[in-house]
Amino acid sequence: MRFVRFGPRGEEKPGVIDDDGQLRDLSAQVADLSGEVLARLTRLDVRAAPVVADSPRLGVPVAGVGKIVCVGMNYSDHARENGMQPPREPILFLKATTALCGPTDPIIRPLGSEMLDWEVELGAVISRRTRYVDEAQALDHVAGYVAINDLSDRSYQLERAGQWTKGKSADSFAPVGPWLVPPRDAGDPQDLALRLWVNGVLRQDGSSARMIFPVARLVSYASQFMTLEPGDILATGTPKGVGMGQRPPVYLVPGDVVELEVEGLGRQRQVVEDEPAA
Amino acid sequence: MRFVRFGPRGEEKPGVIDDDGQLRDLSAQVADLSGEVLARLTRLDVRAAPVVADSPRLGVPVAGVGKIVCVGMNYSDHARENGMQPPREPILFLKATTALCGPTDPIIRPLGSEMLDWEVELGAVISRRTRYVDEAQALDHVAGYVAINDLSDRSYQLERAGQWTKGKSADSFAPVGPWLVPPRDAGDPQDLALRLWVNGVLRQDGSSARMIFPVARLVSYASQFMTLEPGDILATGTPKGVGMGQRPPVYLVPGDVVELEVEGLGRQRQVVEDEPAA
Repeated sequence: MRFVRFGPRGEEKPGVIDDDGQLRDLSAQVADLSGEVLARLTRLDVRAAPVVADSPRLGVPVAGVGKIVCVGMNYSDHARENGMQPPREPILFLKATTALCGPTDPIIRPLGSEMLDWEVELGAVISRRTRYVDEAQALDHVAGYVAINDLSDRSYQLERAGQWTKGKSADSFAPVGPWLVPPRDAGDPQDLALRLWVNGVLRQDGSSARMIFPVARLVSYASQFMTLEPGDILATGTPKGVGMGQRPPVYLVPGDVVELEVEGLGRQRQVVEDEPAA
Repeated sequence: MRFVRFGPRGEEKPGVIDDDGQLRDLSAQVADLSGEVLARLTRLDVRAAPVVADSPRLGVPVAGVGKIVCVGMNYSDHARENGMQPPREPILFLKATTALCGPTDPIIRPLGSEMLDWEVELGAVISRRTRYVDEAQALDHVAGYVAINDLSDRSYQLERAGQWTKGKSADSFAPVGPWLVPPRDAGDPQDLALRLWVNGVLRQDGSSARMIFPVARLVSYASQFMTLEPGDILATGTPKGVGMGQRPPVYLVPGDVVELEVEGLGRQRQVVEDEPAA
């Protein structure tokens, strides 16, 4: 089962893509893909949901996202490309939820941004209130998995006085989706391919097998520091091949096309645009 | 006018304390102190709101808080006590919104926390969508001011692999209130006294006059990096006198009583408790 939210921005409805690839409208069964619904996704009656005839825009496949908890330097190959030692414990930071957008919405390059970079990541969506969960139980708190592009401006992140948040939080810096796939259908979260292309050139070609800290550890770890709530997204880090890691570095400019996929979670495609002048 | 939210946790109603000090119930006029309501607080009809007879608990005086944007090292005296140069531009970080609590709710010391510290701060609540606002217009985007205690675990913040968020986001680490005071009633935000006591001992005794970057600059600056939305809280930094800055350092332990006030914004009082064992 692949859950989606479809329709114009800000007016998305909950939906599901059935085994025949047909989009169905779940809005008669649930108000949205949020809150307690996330703990019972697989019990929804897909066959009872009416088929949607056209091909609407897809939005972020989860609603009511209270926070985006991101993990830095969680792939050994990515740490190496940045010339850094693998961290001894997970590096966490928060990305503003105003950065969220759908998987094919444009990436807006902020005013003055000259080091706009990409990061394909596996995201875990939390299904229920989670605090101090053991690693062994942690995946029971995951509603499903999503693809996410953790966009950054590297100058804002690294050269503008401390704390990565500043380079991670601009509008459109968190495309999520297209699909939210429950754990039983997503396969082993530690064996998924992650790929990202810029203008058709394959830039990232990794596997979640190379995570330093696996998803279960990350959920458990983050829950030691804060309460995770239904709809919170944990972005689990990116493999090597980011723009900053190229020799010489490559950054996104208007007109560039970013495509990415996480195995089994669908494909994103974004065109980079400049922020309209104020 | 002093706006409040009153009632049991999670069931707070919007209210206002009138010029005679009486609590009045605004719930017939507005659903909550959130969203577009924040841009028209001073046009609400206080006299038409019924008086509340008892003295209920007060919660966070703003609802629908999408993010808490915090500013680090924004007082010259606090930078000095940490042995740091004043930053050349504002340091921003995000605090998880799950950290929010009312002004007299207990501070919960997380499991394993041994360096629990306080920070009295002036908070600015955003009234409307704000992106790339000039400093000259920035205060027009402030719905009002609040007192906030920006609690931290210094070990989690500084010794646990990068990024302050980890030490700033535990449940109860953001008591806000008691009052949301609109700008016209709050006076000059750059001339407010801030004080904090631990067990009756005055530990912080500062003034917002000593901010390195004033509130207008901070709102403008933050809006260069992300969109601020109605209800977002900007915590503008703390003056000297935090626990880490004492010689020797002093950290909060269960039973400690923290009291703080920001001039004109009311007084907070919290008792520190240990997290119940799981």
